[in-house]
Amino acid sequence: MTQAQMLYEGKAKKIYAVPGEPDHVLMEFKDSLTAFNAQKKGSFDDKGPINRDIASFIFAELRARGIESHWVRDEGERAMVARKVTIIPLEVVIRNVLAGSTAKKLGIEEGRELPRPLVEFYFKDDELQDPFVSDDQIEILNIAEASDLKELKERALAVNAVLKAMFAKTGIRLVDFKIEFGKDSKGRILLADEITPDCCRLWDEKTNEKLDKDRFRRDLGKIKESYEDVLARLRRAGRTS
Amino acid sequence: MTQAQMLYEGKAKKIYAVPGEPDHVLMEFKDSLTAFNAQKKGSFDDKGPINRDIASFIFAELRARGIESHWVRDEGERAMVARKVTIIPLEVVIRNVLAGSTAKKLGIEEGRELPRPLVEFYFKDDELQDPFVSDDQIEILNIAEASDLKELKERALAVNAVLKAMFAKTGIRLVDFKIEFGKDSKGRILLADEITPDCCRLWDEKTNEKLDKDRFRRDLGKIKESYEDVLARLRRAGRTS
Repeated sequence: MTQAQMLYEGKAKKIYAVPGEPDHVLMEFKDSLTAFNAQKKGSFDDKGPINRDIASFIFAELRARGIESHWVRDEGERAMVARKVTIIPLEVVIRNVLAGSTAKKLGIEEGRELPRPLVEFYFKDDELQDPFVSDDQIEILNIAEASDLKELKERALAVNAVLKAMFAKTGIRLVDFKIEFGKDSKGRILLADEITPDCCRLWDEKTNEKLDKDRFRRDLGKIKESYEDVLARLRRAGRTS
Repeated sequence: MTQAQMLYEGKAKKIYAVPGEPDHVLMEFKDSLTAFNAQKKGSFDDKGPINRDIASFIFAELRARGIESHWVRDEGERAMVARKVTIIPLEVVIRNVLAGSTAKKLGIEEGRELPRPLVEFYFKDDELQDPFVSDDQIEILNIAEASDLKELKERALAVNAVLKAMFAKTGIRLVDFKIEFGKDSKGRILLADEITPDCCRLWDEKTNEKLDKDRFRRDLGKIKESYEDVLARLRRAGRTS
């Protein structure tokens, strides 16, 4: 396709207009890798294509299970066409196992299995460093509407149930992940952004080896190999037809 | 009364056993003043007696309006006898106007009137610096029980309604305040700790002058005068009989 107007460049993706498809955008996955609100930067070859493949595999799997997303189709080797949405400014984090910032803030060792999935909201604002917010703060300060919030939670838990089962088939424990939602021109809420090892914690079920961006955050090496491993395992386990 | 065994010394209070009253403790209000998790320390003469008087005035007012607390009676000039409770490890913050840490974290200027009171929970742990926690985190991580949480919220809002009206009569705007709850030997939840300018934001209704611990936190001077002013205004406005 002909390269068109770039609408936005984020930390891991570029968003372009799609000529002739006003309700769609093209999301190109970059090779770059950032952490700690972009204070740490890196990249590896083929990260864009690997993450695009993982993201579209997951969006297809979710669709097969009845969960709609902004994903429309793949395009080339590092891009996908997606429905144009206005992102709701909340990072929705779902945790099955305690790790990361919440483990740290509560002084609990990483790895505690939770009795049920924990849904957390972070206000998307780089300058404020995406602060953790409660339901009441979101509603009273008009970050999102109460009815939307309820829907985001239900959707997030539904996505979690599908992904947990999907990763279990590949020998991976879905520790936690971050998703974002947007509203399309009709006001419909859609799962948006991406689901890749950039925004999930994925631990090998047997060895607890990390297969995600924590390898970059914590300088554990073998970053590319881990991302490739995740994709290979998903493909081996196969799609729900 | 004869001074008895000290059970605990906190930043602003000492707690003693009360001989012959096993269900009670004596809470002595110290003259010291701390902020930022005790990184900043100070004191002023008669702070203990002033705060004891404000706290028991408020507990009496709440009782007159049907809200029970641990307060039993005053003792001497800087102490009160209170029911012995096990503190629930949550600081409950109620905000009518946005200020302090929540204003800062969300990048909103202090002073925004909220459409309804915001209830926030902070996990009481000095070492972790009292992290902000959501309802889901509290429930799933067993910081408190779901049923207790609901009761804490309702009680906090009831306390707020009484205090807001009480301070309004004195020309003071109740911006926000922090309270704690405990369980007595029968498992009954009681408002505990203290309510004083140490844990409230109190702004003069006309001038917006701060009449609370922010004068100490922010080096605004006239700390003692402000605490005295709060007590004098409460006494002038009088109790609900």
